[in-house]
Order: sequence, then C-alpha cells, then structure tokens
Amino acid sequence: MSTSETAPASTPARGYSATKEGLLARLKRIEGQVRGVLGMVADDRYCIDVLTQISAIQAALDKVALGLLDDHARHCVMGADGADRVDKTDELMASVARLMRRG
Amino acid sequence: MSTSETAPASTPARGYSATKEGLLARLKRIEGQVRGVLGMVADDRYCIDVLTQISAIQAALDKVALGLLDDHARHCVMGADGADRVDKTDELMASVARLMRRG
Amino acid sequence: MSTSETAPASTPARGYSATKEGLLARLKRIEGQVRGVLGMVADDRYCIDVLTQISAIQAALDKVALGLLDDHARHCVMGADGADRVDKTDELMASVARLMRRG
Amino acid sequence: MSTSETAPASTPARGYSATKEGLLARLKRIEGQVRGVLGMVADDRYCIDVLTQISAIQAALDKVALGLLDDHARHCVMGADGADRVDKTDELMASVARLMRRG
Repeated sequence: MSTSETAPASTPARGYSATKEGLLARLKRIEGQVRGVLGMVADDRYCIDVLTQISAIQAALDKVALGLLDDHARHCVMGADGADRVDKTDELMASVARLMRRG
Repeated sequence: MSTSETAPASTPARGYSATKEGLLARLKRIEGQVRGVLGMVADDRYCIDVLTQISAIQAALDKVALGLLDDHARHCVMGADGADRVDKTDELMASVARLMRRG
Repeated sequence: MSTSETAPASTPARGYSATKEGLLARLKRIEGQVRGVLGMVADDRYCIDVLTQISAIQAALDKVALGLLDDHARHCVMGADGADRVDKTDELMASVARLMRRG
Repeated sequence: MSTSETAPASTPARGYSATKEGLLARLKRIEGQVRGVLGMVADDRYCIDVLTQISAIQAALDKVALGLLDDHARHCVMGADGADRVDKTDELMASVARLMRRG
C-alpha cells in the first residue's frame, strides 16, 4: 500500500511523518496478528494460547501508541505557540489518560 | 467464514465454543478497526485521533480477553480434576498477569 | 503488628492465610513507599522522580493483587461446589476486570 | 503537615507547586487506604474485598500520576528551551511508558 504518493506535498507534516513507513509496517503486522487470532478461534485452539496472542497484540499496540505520543509531543505540541500549546497539552494528556485506561 | 462446520464433532469443546460466533464477529470488527487505523496513518490524520482509535481497539481486545478468560475459568479450569486443575490454574493466572502487563 | 493471634482459630481459612505474614510485610513496605512519595512531594522533589516511585508502588500493588487472585482461585474458587463455584468464578472475573481497569 | 514553609523561597518551582496541598492530601488518603488494606488482611477479610480496595488504590495512584504528568508537561517541559526541552520530552515519555507498564 504505497500511500505516501497520495498525500499532496502541501499536507501539513504530522508528527509521525518521518516514521510513517515504519508505522504502517507495524500496523500491517498487527492486522496480521489479529487475523491470526481469528484463525486460532476458528480452529478451536486452546484459550490460553489465544490469550497469549492477544497480549502480544496489546504490547504491539502500546508500542505504536507510545511512538505516536512521542512524535506528537515532540513535533506538534512543542512546536505550537502560546494558547495553542496549552490546548495541545490538554489533548495529549487526555490521550495518555485513555491509554492508561483512566480517560 | 463458516468455521463451525470444519470442527469435527469429536473436538474437545473449548471454553469459548458456545460463544464462538460472537467471538469471531468481535475479532472481525477489531481487524476492521486496525485496518481503519492503517488508513488514518496513510492519510496523515491527526495523531490524537489515531491514538483515540488505538485506545478503542485496546478496549475491544481487553473485552475479548476477559470473555475468553471467563469461559476458560468456567469450562476448562473448573472442569479439570486434581493436579490438572492446579496446572490449569497456574496457566490461567500467568495469562492474567500478562494481560495486566506484569507477566 | 502481630495480628495472627487476634484471628480466632475457628476463622474460616482465607486463601491467603498460608502467605499472610509475607503479604503483611509487602503491604507494610508499600505503605512506606507511599510515605516516601509524600516526603518527596513535601520536599519539592523532581516530578519525574516522584512518578518513577509511583510506578514502583503500582508494580508492587499489582504483585500483591496477583498473589491474592492466585490464592483465591486456588483455595476459595476451586474448593467451592456447584452453584457457589459459579458465583465465585463470577466474582473472580469481575475482580480481574477491575485490576485490568475495565471493570 | 505544613511543608510549604520549609521550602525556601528560592526553590525552583516544581510543576506541582500550585497544587501541592491537594497532592499531599491525596497521598495522605492513599496512605490511609494502604493501611486499611493491611488491616483487612490482618483481620482475614475476604480476598475479593481486599482486591477491590487494591483496585481503588491503583485508581487513586493513577489519578495522582496523571496530575503530576500534566503539571510537569505544562510547567517543566513547555517552559524548557531547545536541547533541554528535547531531553525533558524524552524523560516525560519514558515516564508515560512506565505508567503504561511498558517502560
């Protein structure tokens, strides 16, 4: 899925732009892991093995989320000015709370 | 994906057998959500919106995991005898620890 | 704090009885860690150091919780009969959900 | 515990200074909750009730941690310049990872 071509040159750079290819590759892998779990359930595989796979997906998603948070803090929040930076910090922290399951 | 036909009648019933169709449907939905996040990243969507979607996927995966744990405890652990039940309780608790991110 | 004497011999054994001394010692240590964080805040210590200590307390509490869950599953749930075992499994799973922050 | 007097006027303001009294009050309450759990274990109280209390303490600690993160991001990270801000963002994100149990 070559998506970078479809993004016009004028697109305001997202925090994750620099690492976009890596991010897409990780998400593709996670999509495959979810499909793997689907197959395990379809094949009546042992619950505990299915749960182990789900934990692996959660760990992979956490890693993607932390990467996105980091890029966002670095590029979008730090780069913002004054009131905009305050709003963006609010947004960032609400996102952290959701990821910590307290949002 | 009609998978119940492929499971021979003699397959030892998994804990999740009763709810297998529902489980497959949920996992299909999660697969779609991951694909949605892929599309959002490809389209350079705002990081915080991507993160919100990732939190939603994690909540959905936790729900699947809790359902599997519950079925497993009820059908496989409770139904086991003696030493096998002790082993299965060990397994269950190791799985809970992994889901709590302490395994 | 010698508490075992205050528990009458007829007290129905809790799942954690065997490990009660160890559990009390761990909780005492956690109480001390919380007091340590109080002191750090009172002394205007650096936020990140305070946060690191809070993460350590949470890890210690998770360990206590996993130990309690394990003892409970092993002694109270497994030892229960019929309908009582079903109820106790419900209770156990609701507790797991709360610890996974989804309850 | 009147601690603000002991902090010399020249102490560089921590992110949580403004809310220090509130933070100390919350931590005092958490200390009391941990002591409550100690008493419950000493009294052989039912495991599930102990676990419910531990979940409440975890929720309270998460709230304290999110408050500290927020203050830190707002006051210490945003207020830093250049290379220092990059370092402080690294620190903040490592702290978030620890709180998400992935650090």
